[in-house]
Amino acid sequence: MIQKNEFFESIVNNRQKHPERLNASFNRIEEVLQILSIVKADEIIEKCKTEIDHSRNQLTDNEGVYVYKTINSLCTEKELKRIAELLFLSEISTKEAISLHEEYKIPVSHLEKDIIPISGDGAWITDNVNRRFLDMDSNYSATNLGMSNREIALGIYNQAIQLISMKEDRVHIPRTRFLKNIHEMLPDGLTQFYWQNSGGEAVDKALKIAKAYTKNAGVVAMKGGFHGRTHGAVSVTYEEKYRKPFFLHNQDWVHFVEFNDAEAVKNLFEKNKAKTVILELVQGEEAGIRPAEREFPKKLRDICDQYNGVMIVDEIQTGFGRTAEKENQWFASMVYDVIPDIMTIGKSFGGGYPVTAVVTNKQVSNAMKPGYDGSTFGGNPMAMVAAMIATRQMREKNITKNVIERSQQIINGLKRIRDENNSIGEIRGLGLMLSFQLSSPEKVAEFQKEIARNGVKTSLSTREWVRFLPPLIISKTDVDFLLKAIAQTLQII
Amino acid sequence: MIQKNEFFESIVNNRQKHPERLNASFNRIEEVLQILSIVKADEIIEKCKTEIDHSRNQLTDNEGVYVYKTINSLCTEKELKRIAELLFLSEISTKEAISLHEEYKIPVSHLEKDIIPISGDGAWITDNVNRRFLDMDSNYSATNLGMSNREIALGIYNQAIQLISMKEDRVHIPRTRFLKNIHEMLPDGLTQFYWQNSGGEAVDKALKIAKAYTKNAGVVAMKGGFHGRTHGAVSVTYEEKYRKPFFLHNQDWVHFVEFNDAEAVKNLFEKNKAKTVILELVQGEEAGIRPAEREFPKKLRDICDQYNGVMIVDEIQTGFGRTAEKENQWFASMVYDVIPDIMTIGKSFGGGYPVTAVVTNKQVSNAMKPGYDGSTFGGNPMAMVAAMIATRQMREKNITKNVIERSQQIINGLKRIRDENNSIGEIRGLGLMLSFQLSSPEKVAEFQKEIARNGVKTSLSTREWVRFLPPLIISKTDVDFLLKAIAQTLQII
Repeated sequence: MIQKNEFFESIVNNRQKHPERLNASFNRIEEVLQILSIVKADEIIEKCKTEIDHSRNQLTDNEGVYVYKTINSLCTEKELKRIAELLFLSEISTKEAISLHEEYKIPVSHLEKDIIPISGDGAWITDNVNRRFLDMDSNYSATNLGMSNREIALGIYNQAIQLISMKEDRVHIPRTRFLKNIHEMLPDGLTQFYWQNSGGEAVDKALKIAKAYTKNAGVVAMKGGFHGRTHGAVSVTYEEKYRKPFFLHNQDWVHFVEFNDAEAVKNLFEKNKAKTVILELVQGEEAGIRPAEREFPKKLRDICDQYNGVMIVDEIQTGFGRTAEKENQWFASMVYDVIPDIMTIGKSFGGGYPVTAVVTNKQVSNAMKPGYDGSTFGGNPMAMVAAMIATRQMREKNITKNVIERSQQIINGLKRIRDENNSIGEIRGLGLMLSFQLSSPEKVAEFQKEIARNGVKTSLSTREWVRFLPPLIISKTDVDFLLKAIAQTLQII
Repeated sequence: MIQKNEFFESIVNNRQKHPERLNASFNRIEEVLQILSIVKADEIIEKCKTEIDHSRNQLTDNEGVYVYKTINSLCTEKELKRIAELLFLSEISTKEAISLHEEYKIPVSHLEKDIIPISGDGAWITDNVNRRFLDMDSNYSATNLGMSNREIALGIYNQAIQLISMKEDRVHIPRTRFLKNIHEMLPDGLTQFYWQNSGGEAVDKALKIAKAYTKNAGVVAMKGGFHGRTHGAVSVTYEEKYRKPFFLHNQDWVHFVEFNDAEAVKNLFEKNKAKTVILELVQGEEAGIRPAEREFPKKLRDICDQYNGVMIVDEIQTGFGRTAEKENQWFASMVYDVIPDIMTIGKSFGGGYPVTAVVTNKQVSNAMKPGYDGSTFGGNPMAMVAAMIATRQMREKNITKNVIERSQQIINGLKRIRDENNSIGEIRGLGLMLSFQLSSPEKVAEFQKEIARNGVKTSLSTREWVRFLPPLIISKTDVDFLLKAIAQTLQII
């Protein structure tokens, strides 16, 4: 049964318990009454409106008391409980949320407003109007362990009440704990860390380290590759429209070659135009889901060995089990049986906390000198707590095993659906980085919209490809749900 | 009185309560016994060593039980309490912490290992060997509210158990709450946000936005300026040694001019070589502490207005009250009475959580188009919770008032000391970004070392300048302590 003060606090926030929340807005209360089809909603709204100054502002404490009393007198216990639950998840309305984002966002990207997620459990998301979705995106692979995490939350809490931050340069304890436990997951010899906060930043620094080591500014990058958005990272990202507005499209130090074309890399190394090559082993953003040909990474390894070059594998999206074919293949480079000189890691590394890193071997690392870089937040205590707990959860949950099983289940399911419905074209991917082809980009858009109605949130699409990057903890039952939703959706569109 | 299980859990970790901790190492237990001068330390160590496999590994649960029983039988209640307290703050020894950092750090910066901080309260830090220091650095200004923060910790906890992450593109509730409350702190018209994770990243993106708006690749930057380390940010950073190893020292789009030389900027704009100027209003890293001349920013504002150029003020270190001369001057641009077109903010923005942003006006913002950028972690829910609570604390604690008072107290105190001791040269700075001159860099090093013995942790020095960037919550009593320590130290060295 609902505690009276619990319902009260869903309207007039108790800051001692919830410093992150505000008082509810009346606009949100109206929304919640509607979502829950509260019988006397109209009467409540009518009665409160006379007392409320502006329905989109947070209620003042006095207004909140009035609203509380009104709802309390006109609703059943059961209704109060449901109202409190939904208000606790968000005390702010859809309209407010969207309008403030629209008003104050620098429009460097499309504002996504079709779903406003407010809580997650397992592979599922609940949105602010009480819909549930199976998450087939996991925030571009940043929430592989799901959208909420009590153990990481508690670890961060404990750290923040003790020592909330410390710069990259200084020895601290949470980073020491992390270093005690990580090495079994890493490719052989990749032991040296430089901590950063975003993926783009890690790539940017990896390029700096490679250039300083090779004493050659040149970098070979792949057509179709995506590595991030800083000046350095976007320069090696293929899409010209990501570079041109910033005059970064004709960089003399960057050479793009066809994905899988090892000869082209060799030629550039031979001519001394470059001594560094950077790639994703599974291209994710700009090429549907496109795994490298099996022998390509090994050829690059040989070329780098021959010319004393540096092979950077960007594992930001592929890392931490996403592409596993065998148990404990934590990185795509393990699947391809190749050891890069530098690896960038990020996304799910901290279970949702922004923490990334450049990882390299002793030889490359030793070429760095104090003064070459520096970071305020890189490898900070909260980040290291999150990374230690997240990577431990990955091992303990044996998620690479789950990746292998769920990947097979999805691929087999898609093939079965294709047998009965010829709208699916090619199916491709590695592990739980999967995509399938429909007839056109328009068809994909239609599919995404329709399957959302069936409770599945897809990943961003690329042209005629539907992409899936589910959290790696997705269950067998979840995948059954997914496959059923796909089949149903394809029958309708 | 100490609970038996509390002492036990300081050795054999209770992961349910402390997922971020490990079992203690025996090496740390030896260290703690020594630090606390435990009477029977030798006997305890002797007895335990026969049972411990390797003193630097974490104890196994069985080993832990043995150590617990041994210490328990040979120590007083009071000793047990002190051992438990220190072990809870760190279960890992100095040796372990330093050796793991030394082994696995990419040496892009000097490893700072003289002090290993493990907890903070107010402006004070406790290190792992139980020393206390007044923090005169606040992590390059990232922990202006102090080194621990219970309210931010709780807010992040609540967020992480509900929705741990969400990409920059998507509408979410914590960011909406933040947007409801921030605008009173910002310069007029600077209302548009693009969220990032590190300061360098924010500068890098500010440059991209400025280039896209001006349709001119050129950027004027200041000699002595420091803006970060990504390809973009380091290109506009003056020190050549930060750029040269990465072939970023002869960038044709960057033009360095003397700090305070408005004419030079005008000439470059006039010749269309650039339409963007970036600067810190108080240079912090590479020039001791060097405030701009009072009229310089206004001249730049006029030039930008005349040529439809973009003025970027990097407020990452100066922002959120650090340089206040009057109450509620939250940014250095307010002190200089000028409104930039773009402002970068970071460091203390999230009270220690890595969150930064590019802030601009509607006009510049409107020139951006979807696809121009994108971020996985920028403005994520935990970051927005931290930023909302941190900025609210800044306002509620009225920290700009404290900055003004403590700044005067320090400056007056330094002048009094100088009257009696001629080793202090020039004193300069703004707000709580202060520095004073000694006779040589060697003297500064000696001063820093000696004052650390007196319980004061200084900021990194620059040449012959001692720098102070204390947390903005530093108290009158703390400053009295500081001034006394400075006077004492100068008498000795």
